[in-house]
Amino acid sequence: MLYLVGLGLGDAADITVKGLQAVKRCSRVYLEAYTSILTVGKEALEEYYGKELILADRDLVEQGADEILKGADVTDVAFLVVGDPFGATTHSDLVLRAVNAGIPYKVIHNASIMNAVGCCGLQREEDLRASSLHDGQSGCRSADSDHPEEERGGGGASDKSQSAVLRPASLPTPGVTEDTVCVGVARLGADDQVICTATLQQLVSCDLGGPLHSLVVTGRLHPLEVDMLRMNAKPNALQHLRMVDSSTYCS
Amino acid sequence: MLYLVGLGLGDAADITVKGLQAVKRCSRVYLEAYTSILTVGKEALEEYYGKELILADRDLVEQGADEILKGADVTDVAFLVVGDPFGATTHSDLVLRAVNAGIPYKVIHNASIMNAVGCCGLQREEDLRASSLHDGQSGCRSADSDHPEEERGGGGASDKSQSAVLRPASLPTPGVTEDTVCVGVARLGADDQVICTATLQQLVSCDLGGPLHSLVVTGRLHPLEVDMLRMNAKPNALQHLRMVDSSTYCS
Repeated sequence: MLYLVGLGLGDAADITVKGLQAVKRCSRVYLEAYTSILTVGKEALEEYYGKELILADRDLVEQGADEILKGADVTDVAFLVVGDPFGATTHSDLVLRAVNAGIPYKVIHNASIMNAVGCCGLQREEDLRASSLHDGQSGCRSADSDHPEEERGGGGASDKSQSAVLRPASLPTPGVTEDTVCVGVARLGADDQVICTATLQQLVSCDLGGPLHSLVVTGRLHPLEVDMLRMNAKPNALQHLRMVDSSTYCS
Repeated sequence: MLYLVGLGLGDAADITVKGLQAVKRCSRVYLEAYTSILTVGKEALEEYYGKELILADRDLVEQGADEILKGADVTDVAFLVVGDPFGATTHSDLVLRAVNAGIPYKVIHNASIMNAVGCCGLQREEDLRASSLHDGQSGCRSADSDHPEEERGGGGASDKSQSAVLRPASLPTPGVTEDTVCVGVARLGADDQVICTATLQQLVSCDLGGPLHSLVVTGRLHPLEVDMLRMNAKPNALQHLRMVDSSTYCS
């Protein structure tokens, strides 16, 4: 059996009980180490699981899938992915290769930035548009070298952004300006997570600390969303908010 | 401390290790019982956690929040939510009440249908639009009475849909017809989950079994997405697929 196990966001204890049980029974455990990272490194995970982990870089996953799948028809192999296993095309490819080789697979889901970012207070009930956030697009000055151990632990992850942009209201043309209210999110799910609501201009001088980072660009907001944003807002950040028409409140 | 703990999708073991640790140390544990359900009931969760659970229906959460938060400044209280805690506006409201009362809170995230539905093979890399799926919108005939125990276990949940619609390519006007390729998803994350790719017309006569159900409406597809869909496709379901222009493949 090939287990694709989501590790969630944060640290070693964010794995699900079901995921941990699967890891413990596997004869080989790979840690996907290039689409994202946890705030703890490989060694911390190995200690927590009581298992040796094999770092799977992009080359191994894309070119060496046969090595990962070897023997998975007769033994159990786990493939660990930060967040949920289906955040990246690459893992669909691994599943297809398993199926073509007659290897059964099971997905053990977990939180990813795509759903967990809801904790910043923006809702997705009416109309949500999400797209990948590219490196460096956040406009946040981040101290990339704050957590060198974590970066090593991640095994050379090249993408330090948790990728999610939510625009909760319909926004065919974003029309983002320096006054647009955005939410900077850092290390979501970790004990030292930071959520900072500010205008894009204010975020330029906002140091959110080490990776991972996400940027949420707000659209038209519901009053309850504003209340949630206010909890972590910079002074004067919310004066340019665009509100949904009161007749469309979803209450 | 108020802990908002996501239970993920599936059964009792889909809670995270961190979430389970929090539940075990809480003096009161509420189970939010109206926005979604697990495939196991309250009793199974109580046995698994070794804790008595208090069912929190809509009235209690929306009108009796003070009761939930009572004493949470000096003791630990958990509020359990199927999926991730921030799928519903109601839980933002609970957080705001806690903050206003000076009660610290912590969110322990988990998988929800919003991200886990990625396992059907559709990617969210290019442009994703997701919106809530309303009851009965799926066009699937489902045997609602197949799992009466689960429904009781859910404590009278009125919404039996896991709510997520992904349209992976840009589709300003959906233009859904009976030939539109859709993916019917049932009990995602459970051992007996069903993923069925078919035209909307074919899905009308497709019994996916008991709740929860989701419907994914496809847009223009990448070849890798088609390969993934083919694994669970009805005969002839994919003959009307719309593909992305080859020049836009994200490969």
